[in-house]
Amino acid sequence: MGAIDDLTTELARLPGIGRKTALRLTYFLLKRTPEESRRLARAIETVVERVRECSRCGNLTESDPCGLCQDQRRDPRIICVVEDPADIGAIERTGEYRGQYHVLGGHLSPLDGVGPDELNIDALLRRLGGSGGGGQVDELIIATNPSVEGEATALYLQKLVRPQGVRVTRLARGLPVGGDLEYADGVTIAEALSGRREL
Amino acid sequence: MGAIDDLTTELARLPGIGRKTALRLTYFLLKRTPEESRRLARAIETVVERVRECSRCGNLTESDPCGLCQDQRRDPRIICVVEDPADIGAIERTGEYRGQYHVLGGHLSPLDGVGPDELNIDALLRRLGGSGGGGQVDELIIATNPSVEGEATALYLQKLVRPQGVRVTRLARGLPVGGDLEYADGVTIAEALSGRREL
Repeated sequence: MGAIDDLTTELARLPGIGRKTALRLTYFLLKRTPEESRRLARAIETVVERVRECSRCGNLTESDPCGLCQDQRRDPRIICVVEDPADIGAIERTGEYRGQYHVLGGHLSPLDGVGPDELNIDALLRRLGGSGGGGQVDELIIATNPSVEGEATALYLQKLVRPQGVRVTRLARGLPVGGDLEYADGVTIAEALSGRREL
Repeated sequence: MGAIDDLTTELARLPGIGRKTALRLTYFLLKRTPEESRRLARAIETVVERVRECSRCGNLTESDPCGLCQDQRRDPRIICVVEDPADIGAIERTGEYRGQYHVLGGHLSPLDGVGPDELNIDALLRRLGGSGGGGQVDELIIATNPSVEGEATALYLQKLVRPQGVRVTRLARGLPVGGDLEYADGVTIAEALSGRREL
């Protein structure tokens, strides 16, 4: 059963999918009509063929520059820096942000060999007007993940960018909405305390 | 982002994969090298192209009859009836069975419109020698799932086959090995009691 084994092996390479789930998916793909399963194969081919990184912000896109960069209604004076393209989706779904984005493509992680050169930082500096162009950015919102690496990356960016006179902000930390104080971890409660706001 | 949306939609059609997981998989496929992701697409195409049902036992195979049916070392006097091809894998992994198989392709489920005609039962009767051929089968092991539908299917098959003088058996029910009596459900304990064996 070479073909079945091959597909199971390929599916098991996906994150969060073990050998058993992969086998179940293989049988599912065989149970559907060939046309339905081929649609998945073609969707993968199409994505691999067409989707590229936006040369301006690093977002994944089929057109370069990407739709967000091309959108004239978005405020060019604010740039929100995220680790991955998926983070843009998370922020866009809130409908609360109308500025531009910049995707780093990860976070600083020296142990994994990810230093500043591995991240999309040069392009960010260019956008901030470092090398002659632009200079119209007022605020840089750093929206890296609230993890140790995300914090380190935020700190690094802040030090790098502040001399240019750009305001650098960071997403607020605190209690997640709908969460329960009793089950929140200590660090989060401490952050929520130090970041408390006047009612 | 048409291509990304399309792939996410296709991935979300897979069982156990919701919209969020599908999006995560899409970004994962984009993060890998194009060649790695294309391998998955090609594996799907290949499986869809090459894998067929074995005309004899209903197992999924690239050669017809399938490897299990062609294997001369397997005992042709015993046929194990399962619901799905995946069940064959589960039994083969035990290494305890050396007979042949027959795949029904599901279980009886009148509410879903699955009657005897929708299952691979005619071919089973032919193998038992109903229409002239064979007649060398001594035992039919019914290994449908231990669910209500699986039981109903087993009962139906038993009534259908017994007049042909074939011995019909069913996989034993009882406590799963490594399980805990305290957490076993009542029906299972009752089955384990009624099926108890001399030490």
